[in-house]
Amino acid sequence: MHTTTDLEKFYYLFPQTVAVIGVGKNLMPAAWHTPISAKPPLYGVLISPKRYTYEILPEHEGFTVNFLLKDQADLIAKLGSTSGRDIDKLSEFRVAIRNAEKIEGVIMSASYGAYECRKYALHEYGDHFLLIGQVLSIHVNREMLLEQNLIDENMVKPVLYFGKDRYLTINPDTLSIHKKD
Amino acid sequence: MHTTTDLEKFYYLFPQTVAVIGVGKNLMPAAWHTPISAKPPLYGVLISPKRYTYEILPEHEGFTVNFLLKDQADLIAKLGSTSGRDIDKLSEFRVAIRNAEKIEGVIMSASYGAYECRKYALHEYGDHFLLIGQVLSIHVNREMLLEQNLIDENMVKPVLYFGKDRYLTINPDTLSIHKKD
Repeated sequence: MHTTTDLEKFYYLFPQTVAVIGVGKNLMPAAWHTPISAKPPLYGVLISPKRYTYEILPEHEGFTVNFLLKDQADLIAKLGSTSGRDIDKLSEFRVAIRNAEKIEGVIMSASYGAYECRKYALHEYGDHFLLIGQVLSIHVNREMLLEQNLIDENMVKPVLYFGKDRYLTINPDTLSIHKKD
Repeated sequence: MHTTTDLEKFYYLFPQTVAVIGVGKNLMPAAWHTPISAKPPLYGVLISPKRYTYEILPEHEGFTVNFLLKDQADLIAKLGSTSGRDIDKLSEFRVAIRNAEKIEGVIMSASYGAYECRKYALHEYGDHFLLIGQVLSIHVNREMLLEQNLIDENMVKPVLYFGKDRYLTINPDTLSIHKKD
């Protein structure tokens, strides 16, 4: 094993699902996100205060979280390399959207699943803010659902990010079930 | 699109990397975790107060985070289905370990990468606690590193969790580079 204290890229050690966060009509990809609580259903995403998303957050009551397929990686990279301060990303990249229902915001039509969240907490940790939302509603492509409301891993290729502009997806053939009992 | 407010399993919408959290000599798998900050380097994991890990947290100054390969999914499932209250998981499952260097704790020999963290913050959100650690040291299998200290996605098959006991890994053949510039 190689041991290092060069910590700059510690977060490139493992792949992370990419989610696209919608605040108002602006979209920002995020690889730093996680469920926070089951009851109440809470979801968290890390936002740098340098981001336009952080700037406009106080004007909005909630946000959307959009999960896309691997074939959208190019759009995701574009959304991540530009700022809503400079351009209207929705029109610039011709992003197909529909309005969210429970909050004021947009859901990407290309997403296979999405959350609508109401702001629950905002907490500063180091150089990022943890934005936590309460999940009010889940949207999911019905064709990709198995019984029990599980995603069919054979039908969906979620986008993963492995650092340094590298996007990839899962291999459904490696699926194995390891019962906890 | 199918819209639901049945929120119980909202977190099964996307696959998550599995990390095994070591507190003292106890190991707990976690799918809810994320980097929190780059400078200082902070990493966060959600822990239920029902867990033995939560119970013993006050006795320890830090924790380890272990990233394993897909062939360890069976061990991970066992670590997740048992409690350190009832058994000594290390001896019960014959887990090969070595001692951490910067904190009191253990690193799994099977991990391809690991962090040593010092406790930084603990915050209750909903039915979980967010434990944040400052990353003091990174261990990584030297053979799996590309230049620039990036993981070689062709050599490593990280474990992902897709809900309901389903484990899978990435497909390196789907790698694509989407430059942000």
